[in-house]
Amino acid sequence: MNDTFLKACRGEEVDYTPVWFMRQAGRYLPEYQAVREQVDFLTLCKTPELAAKVTLQPVDILGVDAAILFSDILIPVEAMGMHLEFSEKKGPVLSEPVRTKSAVDRLIAPDTEDSMPFVLDTIKILRKELEKKVPLIGFSGAPFTLATYIIEGGSSKNFLNTKKMMFQGRAVFDYLMKKLTRTVISYLSSQIIAGAQAVQIFDSWAGILAPDDYKEFELPYVKKIVTSLKKQHPETPVIYFANNCAGIIKEVKKSGADVIGIDWRIDIADAIKRLGKKVAVQGNLDPCALFLPQEELEKKVQDMLLKGKSAKGHIFNLGHGILPETPVKNAIAAVEAVHKYSKK
Amino acid sequence: MNDTFLKACRGEEVDYTPVWFMRQAGRYLPEYQAVREQVDFLTLCKTPELAAKVTLQPVDILGVDAAILFSDILIPVEAMGMHLEFSEKKGPVLSEPVRTKSAVDRLIAPDTEDSMPFVLDTIKILRKELEKKVPLIGFSGAPFTLATYIIEGGSSKNFLNTKKMMFQGRAVFDYLMKKLTRTVISYLSSQIIAGAQAVQIFDSWAGILAPDDYKEFELPYVKKIVTSLKKQHPETPVIYFANNCAGIIKEVKKSGADVIGIDWRIDIADAIKRLGKKVAVQGNLDPCALFLPQEELEKKVQDMLLKGKSAKGHIFNLGHGILPETPVKNAIAAVEAVHKYSKK
Repeated sequence: MNDTFLKACRGEEVDYTPVWFMRQAGRYLPEYQAVREQVDFLTLCKTPELAAKVTLQPVDILGVDAAILFSDILIPVEAMGMHLEFSEKKGPVLSEPVRTKSAVDRLIAPDTEDSMPFVLDTIKILRKELEKKVPLIGFSGAPFTLATYIIEGGSSKNFLNTKKMMFQGRAVFDYLMKKLTRTVISYLSSQIIAGAQAVQIFDSWAGILAPDDYKEFELPYVKKIVTSLKKQHPETPVIYFANNCAGIIKEVKKSGADVIGIDWRIDIADAIKRLGKKVAVQGNLDPCALFLPQEELEKKVQDMLLKGKSAKGHIFNLGHGILPETPVKNAIAAVEAVHKYSKK
Repeated sequence: MNDTFLKACRGEEVDYTPVWFMRQAGRYLPEYQAVREQVDFLTLCKTPELAAKVTLQPVDILGVDAAILFSDILIPVEAMGMHLEFSEKKGPVLSEPVRTKSAVDRLIAPDTEDSMPFVLDTIKILRKELEKKVPLIGFSGAPFTLATYIIEGGSSKNFLNTKKMMFQGRAVFDYLMKKLTRTVISYLSSQIIAGAQAVQIFDSWAGILAPDDYKEFELPYVKKIVTSLKKQHPETPVIYFANNCAGIIKEVKKSGADVIGIDWRIDIADAIKRLGKKVAVQGNLDPCALFLPQEELEKKVQDMLLKGKSAKGHIFNLGHGILPETPVKNAIAAVEAVHKYSKK
């Protein structure tokens, strides 16, 4: 198996810089769209054979060094008892947003085997299929990010309901966050036991918090998740992707994760300087940079690889999910450039 | 006149920290809503008596130390020849987005007196009304921010069209940016001549750029604006508000502005350390913090004032526009807390 990705996560010597892309299984691939023509998004997530199929597509098509489980961060939220729908226009919609203690009371801390067996089945299929290929990454949303969806009932512009609960209903917010923390620990641990060889915690909305608020209302819960996972599965790398992290990176560093995933709005050299030598770094090409003419794209990749060298380990990635409009050939060119220019 | 705000902009000694709020004339005020019930948003912007009236409201109601012209950053874009509408749901809509050289050709570099006389008339009314009160701030959008609206045709999620033009049509992008730069210089200069005592450049979307791209595709144009304004009006402070600036703050510093406005996603002490001793700083309370219980709000204000002391000058503000849902009494309490806790 190509274990370059796992080695880089651990900060070990590698022959070249490994690369994968967030949302690499997705709408920009015609092969993915062909599957989606037959089933809706949630059904795809819940059908192990199909979820495994789309997970594998970018491994073969792009030549990336890791596969990531095809699923959605809101799957465990649905398992907690909320009604989840995906609207083409509005994105995820969770009816009856949770804003009171009694609403939090009604949320279940779900058991993955009982309520999300399809996730574990997908992982088992994938480990067989990937045996001689690349490692499999499992994932979960971070508690604060999940909390925003639960409290807002979907996406949000200002996250006012979330912050109102933080600021005016601190006890209820903490109660919800504790339930989410337990859920994430158990969910990721089950994924690792089923075969995930690394896990990524997606904190898509960490960056909407003022640094002091991040420190108080999210970091302690993330720390608890990382500590618990490292205790149960010391060999499994934990990646923490905090989106829009430039203002909170000093705090993000304290999460205890092996790898810090960074978005594109921070210079990777600057990020590495602030993160120090104890963690590996993952990132951070602007997804829109995949629309650059090839020569300039290659220059950007080379520059990033050079800067990445100063980290304990560098896993090349985008700074956010790949866009549906991305030409597949450009994504392939980026992967090839990463491999070519990092080879020793 | 209370000139505390102007003194702080220049880094001079002040008796207390001046404060104003972005969008302080706005929907959270019942007095503003009463005016809006009679006219739509664009008509309000273009009717000097009414625009002046709503500009003055927060000065009296909140007791802030500066007034800011009531207008919209897209007013000069309309004057450039684009059709502008405000939709309740989608926000600003510019039909026929500009994405080619010939479309840029058709944009006019407008003369403020000819095509936006109402802006200058509003300023003249305001200077009379504010004579013994507080200084008046004029403003404009920054070229990149204006370019995003012009290219996308409104708000955007990923700004893909803008970045595609940057990356694939560099010459056209530069052509557009140069036209916008000339427009902004002439627009702000006219405002200063009409009576604006300071000007703020709003760069709402600067923070969606990777630092290297900000350096290449926005900073040179902002620098040019600031240099030109300082040459023509050396006494008038220029404030540059770069939203979501944490990752680009080292570059933002190079704009040459007298005051750097910062959003709430960076710790103000961290920002001051990175900005150095040559500029004053403006910011940066999370607008949602106005929903804190009073005691905690006061604590946050005190903490921010303490950190702000290390800057060359500190103007207290929110890190973004005040939210329509904000209770007026909380906004008043914040202003009072700033004055109370900063008094020498």
